[in-house]
Amino acid sequence: MDTATKVIGFIGLGNMGRPMAKNLLKAGYDLVVYDLMEEAVTDLMGLGAKRGTSPKDVAERSEIVITMLPSSPHVEQVILGPLGVLAGARPGLLVIDMSSIAPVVSQKVAAKVKEKGVRMLDAPVTGGTTGAANGTLTIMVGGDKEDLAEAMPIFEHLGKKVIHVGKSGMGQTAKVCNQIVVGISFCAVAEALVLGVKAGADPVLLREILNSGSAHCWALDQRIPHVLEGDFEPGFMINLQHKDLGLALDTGKDLNVPLPFAGLAFQAYSAARAEGLGEKDHSAVIQVLEKLVNVETRKGVNAN
Amino acid sequence: MDTATKVIGFIGLGNMGRPMAKNLLKAGYDLVVYDLMEEAVTDLMGLGAKRGTSPKDVAERSEIVITMLPSSPHVEQVILGPLGVLAGARPGLLVIDMSSIAPVVSQKVAAKVKEKGVRMLDAPVTGGTTGAANGTLTIMVGGDKEDLAEAMPIFEHLGKKVIHVGKSGMGQTAKVCNQIVVGISFCAVAEALVLGVKAGADPVLLREILNSGSAHCWALDQRIPHVLEGDFEPGFMINLQHKDLGLALDTGKDLNVPLPFAGLAFQAYSAARAEGLGEKDHSAVIQVLEKLVNVETRKGVNAN
Amino acid sequence: MDTATKVIGFIGLGNMGRPMAKNLLKAGYDLVVYDLMEEAVTDLMGLGAKRGTSPKDVAERSEIVITMLPSSPHVEQVILGPLGVLAGARPGLLVIDMSSIAPVVSQKVAAKVKEKGVRMLDAPVTGGTTGAANGTLTIMVGGDKEDLAEAMPIFEHLGKKVIHVGKSGMGQTAKVCNQIVVGISFCAVAEALVLGVKAGADPVLLREILNSGSAHCWALDQRIPHVLEGDFEPGFMINLQHKDLGLALDTGKDLNVPLPFAGLAFQAYSAARAEGLGEKDHSAVIQVLEKLVNVETRKGVNAN
Amino acid sequence: MDTATKVIGFIGLGNMGRPMAKNLLKAGYDLVVYDLMEEAVTDLMGLGAKRGTSPKDVAERSEIVITMLPSSPHVEQVILGPLGVLAGARPGLLVIDMSSIAPVVSQKVAAKVKEKGVRMLDAPVTGGTTGAANGTLTIMVGGDKEDLAEAMPIFEHLGKKVIHVGKSGMGQTAKVCNQIVVGISFCAVAEALVLGVKAGADPVLLREILNSGSAHCWALDQRIPHVLEGDFEPGFMINLQHKDLGLALDTGKDLNVPLPFAGLAFQAYSAARAEGLGEKDHSAVIQVLEKLVNVETRKGVNAN
Repeated sequence: MDTATKVIGFIGLGNMGRPMAKNLLKAGYDLVVYDLMEEAVTDLMGLGAKRGTSPKDVAERSEIVITMLPSSPHVEQVILGPLGVLAGARPGLLVIDMSSIAPVVSQKVAAKVKEKGVRMLDAPVTGGTTGAANGTLTIMVGGDKEDLAEAMPIFEHLGKKVIHVGKSGMGQTAKVCNQIVVGISFCAVAEALVLGVKAGADPVLLREILNSGSAHCWALDQRIPHVLEGDFEPGFMINLQHKDLGLALDTGKDLNVPLPFAGLAFQAYSAARAEGLGEKDHSAVIQVLEKLVNVETRKGVNAN
Repeated sequence: MDTATKVIGFIGLGNMGRPMAKNLLKAGYDLVVYDLMEEAVTDLMGLGAKRGTSPKDVAERSEIVITMLPSSPHVEQVILGPLGVLAGARPGLLVIDMSSIAPVVSQKVAAKVKEKGVRMLDAPVTGGTTGAANGTLTIMVGGDKEDLAEAMPIFEHLGKKVIHVGKSGMGQTAKVCNQIVVGISFCAVAEALVLGVKAGADPVLLREILNSGSAHCWALDQRIPHVLEGDFEPGFMINLQHKDLGLALDTGKDLNVPLPFAGLAFQAYSAARAEGLGEKDHSAVIQVLEKLVNVETRKGVNAN
Repeated sequence: MDTATKVIGFIGLGNMGRPMAKNLLKAGYDLVVYDLMEEAVTDLMGLGAKRGTSPKDVAERSEIVITMLPSSPHVEQVILGPLGVLAGARPGLLVIDMSSIAPVVSQKVAAKVKEKGVRMLDAPVTGGTTGAANGTLTIMVGGDKEDLAEAMPIFEHLGKKVIHVGKSGMGQTAKVCNQIVVGISFCAVAEALVLGVKAGADPVLLREILNSGSAHCWALDQRIPHVLEGDFEPGFMINLQHKDLGLALDTGKDLNVPLPFAGLAFQAYSAARAEGLGEKDHSAVIQVLEKLVNVETRKGVNAN
Repeated sequence: MDTATKVIGFIGLGNMGRPMAKNLLKAGYDLVVYDLMEEAVTDLMGLGAKRGTSPKDVAERSEIVITMLPSSPHVEQVILGPLGVLAGARPGLLVIDMSSIAPVVSQKVAAKVKEKGVRMLDAPVTGGTTGAANGTLTIMVGGDKEDLAEAMPIFEHLGKKVIHVGKSGMGQTAKVCNQIVVGISFCAVAEALVLGVKAGADPVLLREILNSGSAHCWALDQRIPHVLEGDFEPGFMINLQHKDLGLALDTGKDLNVPLPFAGLAFQAYSAARAEGLGEKDHSAVIQVLEKLVNVETRKGVNAN
């Protein structure tokens, strides 16, 4: 790989984008960065990045542009807006949107950039800020295989697993589907543990039993041990789980797919936010039910 | 172990009970059996079991009595009824109820037999008819450790994993909690797969992606591969998943624990029953949603 | 009407049954009463009723037997049990069960008494303890028209509205359907009012607007004015609404009719019970949501 | 009233806006209209309206501007966009947005126009196309009382009932709350009727019973008689009920108010849309459940 020849534009230097951009700098890429937060830009410039004055400017100066933004409207604005990426893009530019946004918006943006001869991949990730920092994200990609092949050398510095899901928007679709299952999963586990504890069971033992059979799931396996210790630090924040379930519901709305469980889960995370738990780990959704029935599913409760 | 000295009473020779009783005969135990279905009794007698004329009679002639019955009222009737086990039990008899019933009923029955000096374990199982036939069930036990120690030599011929969950009723509680998570799990996975397919994703690839990350669960891992092949043979029947969620809801009702997700799942399995899917595998609950939106999540759909 | 010639047996002298029985005494009927609560029996005897020693004894001494009991198992026991009504009934006896129980249980009991030549009506009521005291209940009747005609002179002293819904069990069915709508209604109204107040609306005005258009319903019209005053006295208790939704869900289960909204409402009333609101009016279910989002929908809040 | 002195701008000549604009022309107002649909503009011009070339142009030529648009983004674009109303508004102009949109968007737009000295009312309506044609809408108004006083002479030609709900956004809030209750109401009634019919009840009689007691609601009273006749013509379309519940959920999301029942109702109307019922009356949501359990709640079914 000849990284020295590539200039990468990087737009969006938040909790996820900043460590990702740093990994690319470390890997030897030239970066032109843009963010509204001056402090983030200065930080990156201290590590060798150059400042772009607008997404348009970034696009004009880069061979590949990566965007990592909070929501669908941001992506539309940054890519399609008057001073956006597309306004500065030469034909053939490759735009990689790694934000988690609505699949339909992703497809719409991809279609618009394509009209101008610009190529686009949607490439949302899982793995959180830890994965971003360590370059161990899972990256779900929608778009042309050839474009993915071109992006692979970059992705190798960002993640440990890259999956080509299908055409434009399919990366976002896979992400959304994943978030449906994990989001509901924590609600299911909450009901089982709270009921069990109320009935007199030791939650440590109960988790072990459930995790060893047909109730086995990532939530029980990876996150409930923290819950049992009273540790609700993210991990993956309630606010983000809520946002992602919102994307799922929007997608269901667009495609007329009823999603009663995802819909109920969205409301459960809303209740968690109302409880002030927005910045806690998604496992903290259990606290809503714990409060309603006045029990705690912690180590030591009902222990023999 | 000196199995020759033990006479075991076995009441309930249905799909689960019959193969379990056979495993005990094979292991060298003397069995006195009882069931309303004459054919099942004759079958066991052909293998060396003796016939009991009533649960009372079985109890009078046995050192340990095992019950494996369809529901809470059956257990109450068979153990506490006028011709029931308790009526024929000498003090110190050990009754092992391996049925899946309401935890509160289990606790009530245990309390009543204890008044007469009779001991009781609740010991529901997972693993289905295959596990029953192969002696590889998982057995969740509630009751005294000493009584479990006495039952262990028998359990070794029935299951490969025996867990002491806690006091009376805790075996049933663990089972019910397990069934909450697995029952909801299939509903969550159904929404994710149907939405994904409607959005254009290949369900085979989508399942692989979801199963490899935070959406990982037993349902995706073990049962969805069958769904993708169009195979809905049980496994574990919709009717039983529906029954077990009903037990969970009854338990939530008794303990005032709201269970909105389990409640919604119960209704989803009701809808599956209304579709005539009662004797299919619980994964078939996905067909309700598939029908509503007119897609199928099968291998080959949206394949690249 | 020649009431003097009728002896009525009355079994179940609780909050509802006792004032109903008194109305019949006032109307000139001879009553033979039975209840486990000695105090209730003594009270009625002071007004001229005679004591029955068992449901069987009551049946032997009466021309018509009315039962007003808390739940399905009570009705089964009192009518079909060893010392029950049927054991003492001569052919042609008319049994009127005014309890609110599962339609299927009602039908089963009716079928069993019919085998012995005994007639039965199911005749559950709405109107609460006030209606019982004032003789202004609404009575929903299932069974033969001829039997209803015979019961009418009695019903005239108990209720102001008697509806023949259909064959056996249809009285209970109508009651259950009614309770589905009213139970969900309070949950719907709760979401609208809490959301409105959180958004800054005056709940008094909001209730007025909603009640004047397509959101108009009995809950808004009759009960929310009390909520706005902070008055949650029953009316109709959370515990009873919860019980009746449970009957609805049991009926849905028996008939394979999925009831996701009734199911969710059941859980909402469970949450209300967990909050200690079981003996408050069903409108108090709004307090669960109020607590979750920390607002109160009372007069004066957000008032201009 | 001196209507001759007022020039009204009217933007949005759809199913609702067009008949409303016509009523204002009939009342003697001068109208400057704008819509993307040429045919609608021509129609109004035939009745004496003048054409505006953009929302900006309309604003420049009017004393009061009314907008009647399909959704939040349309309102934002038409009022705040580069060629929007605000761009052409002189200080003191009164903008009346009669669209049904998200309360928070309404408040945001009102705040922005206020910065430029422009006044705004949110004034969504109920009553449908019939109410629009007959000038019998109900109008729920948010904003200053003085501005409402100024708008009253106009509203008198559009509706028969005008309610001042409160400050900016409160009109939209009241509308959204109303739609929560009515939307859930049809789902509740659907469960009751389908369960009743499945149990053997005559739906005509059942509706009558329910409507006469605590289950009484607008849905049962006004719309179910049409359902019983198999008539599902709107009325108020599934698509609009779905849209309005979406606004409710967005509002709940913004304010962190969990809305599990509205959320579930949204999914039920999604299922109805998936069934191709989007342009049927909202009562047609019952068809989803009817299909799942294979019954019809129509006159004649189970009739005695």
